[in-house]
Amino acid sequence: MGLTIGVDIGGTKIAAGVVDEEGSILETCKVPTPRTPEGVVDAIADAVRTVSTGHDIEAVGIGAAGYVDDKRATVLFAPNINWRHEALKDKVEQRVGLPVVVENDANAAAWGEYRFGAGQGHDDVVCITLGTGLGGGIIIGGKLHRGRFGVAAEFGHIRVVPDGLLCGCGSQGCWEQYASGRALVRYAKQRANATPENAQVLLGLGDGTPEGIQGKHISDAARQGDPVAIDSFRELARWAGAGLADLASLFDPSAFIVGGGVSDEGDLVLDPIRKSFRRWLVGNQWRPHAQVLAAQLGGKAGLVGAADLARQG
Amino acid sequence: MGLTIGVDIGGTKIAAGVVDEEGSILETCKVPTPRTPEGVVDAIADAVRTVSTGHDIEAVGIGAAGYVDDKRATVLFAPNINWRHEALKDKVEQRVGLPVVVENDANAAAWGEYRFGAGQGHDDVVCITLGTGLGGGIIIGGKLHRGRFGVAAEFGHIRVVPDGLLCGCGSQGCWEQYASGRALVRYAKQRANATPENAQVLLGLGDGTPEGIQGKHISDAARQGDPVAIDSFRELARWAGAGLADLASLFDPSAFIVGGGVSDEGDLVLDPIRKSFRRWLVGNQWRPHAQVLAAQLGGKAGLVGAADLARQG
Amino acid sequence: MGLTIGVDIGGTKIAAGVVDEEGSILETCKVPTPRTPEGVVDAIADAVRTVSTGHDIEAVGIGAAGYVDDKRATVLFAPNINWRHEALKDKVEQRVGLPVVVENDANAAAWGEYRFGAGQGHDDVVCITLGTGLGGGIIIGGKLHRGRFGVAAEFGHIRVVPDGLLCGCGSQGCWEQYASGRALVRYAKQRANATPENAQVLLGLGDGTPEGIQGKHISDAARQGDPVAIDSFRELARWAGAGLADLASLFDPSAFIVGGGVSDEGDLVLDPIRKSFRRWLVGNQWRPHAQVLAAQLGGKAGLVGAADLARQG
Amino acid sequence: MGLTIGVDIGGTKIAAGVVDEEGSILETCKVPTPRTPEGVVDAIADAVRTVSTGHDIEAVGIGAAGYVDDKRATVLFAPNINWRHEALKDKVEQRVGLPVVVENDANAAAWGEYRFGAGQGHDDVVCITLGTGLGGGIIIGGKLHRGRFGVAAEFGHIRVVPDGLLCGCGSQGCWEQYASGRALVRYAKQRANATPENAQVLLGLGDGTPEGIQGKHISDAARQGDPVAIDSFRELARWAGAGLADLASLFDPSAFIVGGGVSDEGDLVLDPIRKSFRRWLVGNQWRPHAQVLAAQLGGKAGLVGAADLARQG
Repeated sequence: MGLTIGVDIGGTKIAAGVVDEEGSILETCKVPTPRTPEGVVDAIADAVRTVSTGHDIEAVGIGAAGYVDDKRATVLFAPNINWRHEALKDKVEQRVGLPVVVENDANAAAWGEYRFGAGQGHDDVVCITLGTGLGGGIIIGGKLHRGRFGVAAEFGHIRVVPDGLLCGCGSQGCWEQYASGRALVRYAKQRANATPENAQVLLGLGDGTPEGIQGKHISDAARQGDPVAIDSFRELARWAGAGLADLASLFDPSAFIVGGGVSDEGDLVLDPIRKSFRRWLVGNQWRPHAQVLAAQLGGKAGLVGAADLARQG
Repeated sequence: MGLTIGVDIGGTKIAAGVVDEEGSILETCKVPTPRTPEGVVDAIADAVRTVSTGHDIEAVGIGAAGYVDDKRATVLFAPNINWRHEALKDKVEQRVGLPVVVENDANAAAWGEYRFGAGQGHDDVVCITLGTGLGGGIIIGGKLHRGRFGVAAEFGHIRVVPDGLLCGCGSQGCWEQYASGRALVRYAKQRANATPENAQVLLGLGDGTPEGIQGKHISDAARQGDPVAIDSFRELARWAGAGLADLASLFDPSAFIVGGGVSDEGDLVLDPIRKSFRRWLVGNQWRPHAQVLAAQLGGKAGLVGAADLARQG
Repeated sequence: MGLTIGVDIGGTKIAAGVVDEEGSILETCKVPTPRTPEGVVDAIADAVRTVSTGHDIEAVGIGAAGYVDDKRATVLFAPNINWRHEALKDKVEQRVGLPVVVENDANAAAWGEYRFGAGQGHDDVVCITLGTGLGGGIIIGGKLHRGRFGVAAEFGHIRVVPDGLLCGCGSQGCWEQYASGRALVRYAKQRANATPENAQVLLGLGDGTPEGIQGKHISDAARQGDPVAIDSFRELARWAGAGLADLASLFDPSAFIVGGGVSDEGDLVLDPIRKSFRRWLVGNQWRPHAQVLAAQLGGKAGLVGAADLARQG
Repeated sequence: MGLTIGVDIGGTKIAAGVVDEEGSILETCKVPTPRTPEGVVDAIADAVRTVSTGHDIEAVGIGAAGYVDDKRATVLFAPNINWRHEALKDKVEQRVGLPVVVENDANAAAWGEYRFGAGQGHDDVVCITLGTGLGGGIIIGGKLHRGRFGVAAEFGHIRVVPDGLLCGCGSQGCWEQYASGRALVRYAKQRANATPENAQVLLGLGDGTPEGIQGKHISDAARQGDPVAIDSFRELARWAGAGLADLASLFDPSAFIVGGGVSDEGDLVLDPIRKSFRRWLVGNQWRPHAQVLAAQLGGKAGLVGAADLARQG
């Protein structure tokens, strides 16, 4: 009893899982993400039915990239799927006959980490997810901070460089252009291009050209001491840590949780982020410092978090 | 009955006032701010006693610049008065025999505006105060957001220009170096120096030199059509509005309230701020927009807010 | 007698012309630019032969985008045509039987303006060309400044914004990303997207969408008072003028000449550039100011300049 | 025979020396710099007379900080001494009865290095001097590039960060705020303040506080492996090298010479500058690279250069 289903809609896969009150996943399934909005709704319903079999399910929580309205019912805008004011809650409820809650995927992941991961024991937590882009979620006083219109915590798009890099959102200088997996690869390519003599390990892991550098090469090369790879992580950390310092000035949480593929590297990336955070934290001698913690749930945070949000109703 | 006292500790004056449940000030007094920490405590106690006469007071709320701890008792650090871990609540309680609450002054002002000023009817409000510097406060779900350690909402010190202007806090590129009364004067001086032919009204209001330009000259000159004065307000607004757009991405409030001396100019400064806000608001076609409102309580917001916070306990 | 031929190799057209000692073009022809390096050489030779007929030609000057070596013989790298260490001088000389000089196209245009256009009467001139990108040339003491390796005056790629916009050159924050025709269009699109109510004339000249805005719409709309179009020119001018101020600190010429498509708008764009130049000119009270002049030869500057450089040998 | 005198006017000392045609100093004297403009003229005349004794002197060259006019006669503006349109050449000639040439001090130093120091064998050289501030000089085709009005090569005040640090010149974001001895000390103080645990050697060399850090401590600490000291040099080098890359795009010299107190550290600072230069050099695969050389004459470059410029007439 007390089971709910979490659904995580990714760009290529939709994952659904049955989750219990302790955040354990009892059953799971994955299907490819269809191309059409209607196809996605069908796929969600199918996945929910598949994992439901043999379980007594109370509710369904769906995590989706994009803006979700304040009623947690409608996706106002999704960057990947062509959803514009899509009444996702109603459509899925009609098909699966269970109460449905829709949440921004990064919010759902933040909630998962707060409840069952690195955030346990903290009431005020800010999570950032350094994936391809940069997302995140905010917990204040043990509650998910959704904002008045449901679209809070869009960390990736605060402006950190006036007149800076163009962003897919149409603006310039957005944080995710400087602190994300994509940024890391750009740093490595630029440096390998300028000083290939310092990137021999890194270049050797790929096809030998700066253009062929991929994220995993950078981690591997950094562990082997490649100067360009290490410097690329340091540059990422400079921007990530400086941004966390800003978030500390605004939110003053007791802990930051850093998740996403980049953070899988653990202290290789977290230590320089911590150092940069302290470097830029205003008033750092006069205030208690938030901890900077590695996420614990990996790619499952969103699914587990969505399921738990559905339970909370 | 139901009366509390609010105390606002400024750089030159300490103001105390008796405030009722509707936020009306029944009585008030001002004394110069002493130079020593102990002197300030004495002056607060004196002022409280002075305005108390003939009133039945329940509690005292004090607004002070600086970091106030999460128990609202100790000033961790004050920029103007030499307070370092000053147990202000205890000291004042011992002298006045009433329950005391200490709050950051910008938080108190934000609370005042939320309860009795421009924020009425909103539950999620972000206030910024464009005074000499830039401060502010955050209301989430009808509650003041103080942060885990009491030091949230330090808006003035988020970094908006990497490697930017030095700030009194020791960091560089802080928002208040670009959006504040001091920044406005700098903009006007630089422009008047470079193109005095476009600043004739402005220069005529002072001593004729760029160095002699003061804040009030800029407002007056702008109303008279002085190009440099107008351009200086526009530059201020560019930075203020862009910062509000970032805060919308993070907090997603239903309203922003803009207070402080600069905002006394009303739509002269608010309209360009609104325009800049819309210009930089990410996803502005797909999301509801927060309103950008002028503060209503002027310089009394802090006193009224501190008094009300004391009432709430 | 005293005739030379100038050849201007553009992205879509190759223009050749017979030019006399006064810089007058006696004859001209245009052919499409072939796709292959060898095709371009053939086309140049054909064009030279075509316009030569009936004239006594002394030499040929070729202006080409890219790096040209210090012997003015080899194109080290061309961005548009696939030339890498192309011995253009030798190849063309073999085909046309005349002495050939190769020059960077922006250098040739600068020389044309210096000799027969806006630069007459000046010995120290810096030209910038605001076309699709930003190029230019430098005249010092009446001589073209080519640099030790032939690749001086690459104005478009000095860094004006650290961590700024990506440039086709692989770097970030290059001046031409902020001061060029392409930048102007970007400014207009961003502003029209954010505040369409201020871009009604501008949008009406195109297809009604921000994406549909073209350069010529912006000029026309600015002349009709469209706020977004005017503001876009002002933004361009901010960056162009600030860059000229830097060049004044370095080169200290007696005049700047501003050419390229953007400058066809004359004082609409030149006046704000002059204002921004004065604004940012360091020590502007203590030093004589260079004039900021509009180019006079339009699109013919490169051809005329190349012809004259060939005459000088 | 063939002897001239060079005079170097510093903020605290005036140095004069007799220099032969090989750039050797035969005799020298130093006097404190007087406070008044007239006092400085007297002191120059006295120093010239003192070192002249027993030598047959042809001419005198004076190097002074500030703008010197195109006739090399009048100091238009000096930052340290209160000279405004000071006819220095005439005044000194009247007192010493010898032909006098006045030159900007950084230009004189550049000329000294070009003729007798690191620049020998090069015809196109750009020198930068990383002292308290950032100055420099330009040699093109074996001639000092003075500019049309005499005020070229003011490297320190090109803008490298829009809206950046305030500069003494009244502008913002000037290169010398990021690449100079003063900048180096700022970097070290900021880092030592944020992460004192990484600055133990550095702090130990001074009074133990970040405020007490001086330039020489940083060099010593860097040689001993102090992380903050090393990182401070690296930050300086990032900005210095990026600026040299811009100068290469503009001037395309065959060599850069880096002088000034900071460069006394040799490869400790030059190697990271070279690396940063290559990193930011646009088109670095397609163009010959200028060398980045350490200055050889130290603090005597200005005196020797001024003397030689006087000889050239």
